[in-house]
Amino acid sequence: MKISVVKNILEANQRIAEENRRRFSESQIMAINLMSSPGAGKTSLLERTIRSLKEEFLVGVVEGDIQSTFDAERISQTGVPVVQINTGGACHLDSNMVQEALGRLDFRNLDLLFIENVGNLVCPAEFNLGEDFKVMILSVAEGDDKPLKYPLMFRESSVLLINKIDLLPFCDCDPALIEDRALKINPRLIIFRISCRSGEGLEQWTDWLRRQFRRTPASAA
Amino acid sequence: MKISVVKNILEANQRIAEENRRRFSESQIMAINLMSSPGAGKTSLLERTIRSLKEEFLVGVVEGDIQSTFDAERISQTGVPVVQINTGGACHLDSNMVQEALGRLDFRNLDLLFIENVGNLVCPAEFNLGEDFKVMILSVAEGDDKPLKYPLMFRESSVLLINKIDLLPFCDCDPALIEDRALKINPRLIIFRISCRSGEGLEQWTDWLRRQFRRTPASAA
Repeated sequence: MKISVVKNILEANQRIAEENRRRFSESQIMAINLMSSPGAGKTSLLERTIRSLKEEFLVGVVEGDIQSTFDAERISQTGVPVVQINTGGACHLDSNMVQEALGRLDFRNLDLLFIENVGNLVCPAEFNLGEDFKVMILSVAEGDDKPLKYPLMFRESSVLLINKIDLLPFCDCDPALIEDRALKINPRLIIFRISCRSGEGLEQWTDWLRRQFRRTPASAA
Repeated sequence: MKISVVKNILEANQRIAEENRRRFSESQIMAINLMSSPGAGKTSLLERTIRSLKEEFLVGVVEGDIQSTFDAERISQTGVPVVQINTGGACHLDSNMVQEALGRLDFRNLDLLFIENVGNLVCPAEFNLGEDFKVMILSVAEGDDKPLKYPLMFRESSVLLINKIDLLPFCDCDPALIEDRALKINPRLIIFRISCRSGEGLEQWTDWLRRQFRRTPASAA
């Protein structure tokens, strides 16, 4: 009984995710679903990424939080359109919440859409939103055992950003071990070491985004 | 429909939590439900706490993980009995999983039981396990906005441990702001600033545990 309820929820989610994906594709929008534990640096990454790309691309953000508009206010300082989703307790975004949020965005003026998920290393990985890429952030302060303990998100993601590398001298964390363990779970995972505080490594990440944008079939049209 | 399913799950959980609570009370066991984001330091805290208390108390641990036995192996190095729960994907422990695990512990040789929950700042707060106290850990690397964004866990917890204070010089985090924001949500919250790496503040935490153990009605019998 419980299992069939979960199955129905995931099937309904997948159906609406496909609708979102079709809409993104029709409007030549590249959508990124950004996931991590609380406090790994999703919003800081977005601030940095938007500032570096907003002269080249029309960027928009869907901001997912359980409650509060704290992050949406931070993002709106960058000058790009932001739509807030409050999940009202739910620990992840689903495709239906995103679909409702899309109605509040001007698709004609959008190239790149970032969807910042709820801070949670578990549940968001189970819910497709219709994104082109899932990108996850892991802070080195969380430790190098995380791929072993939360493998699904590493398996589902296209990109792993190892953030806060400025803290490495003060943490018991070996980033090479994170990389080895993550690649064992997902050999195609693309990995960048970054620091949103110092800016280190961010150029490689934004260059990757630029290349993907050119490659997506929609934007090639 | 979806809401009534969730309601049924929470009611069933509460019923079994009460059974667990009764069993703890009958056996004069004090049970602590330990919760945090991934990598905030639950296992390191347990290692330190057990080493400091195991001469005075009979300690046991229930170790909750989605998969893997990594943390249980770390804890078993301290020489206390550990029972592993693998949730098989689920993002939190529930009272039924704990009840099954209790069958594998010798209640006659137990004073203090620590239940390490799955790393997740959201869902575990909704599921009572029958514990005497919920204790949460927040790492300063997660930032000082977390009480605003994940209020439920701050509301449900009796104790907040602000961990990794050795990283404060290198993080944009004001621990006084964490405390102010957390106390607005839960004015009775007891807060300790600690570092599981340097050991700072841990004596105040273990002293608190000692006092609670003496105070619980069961142990006073």
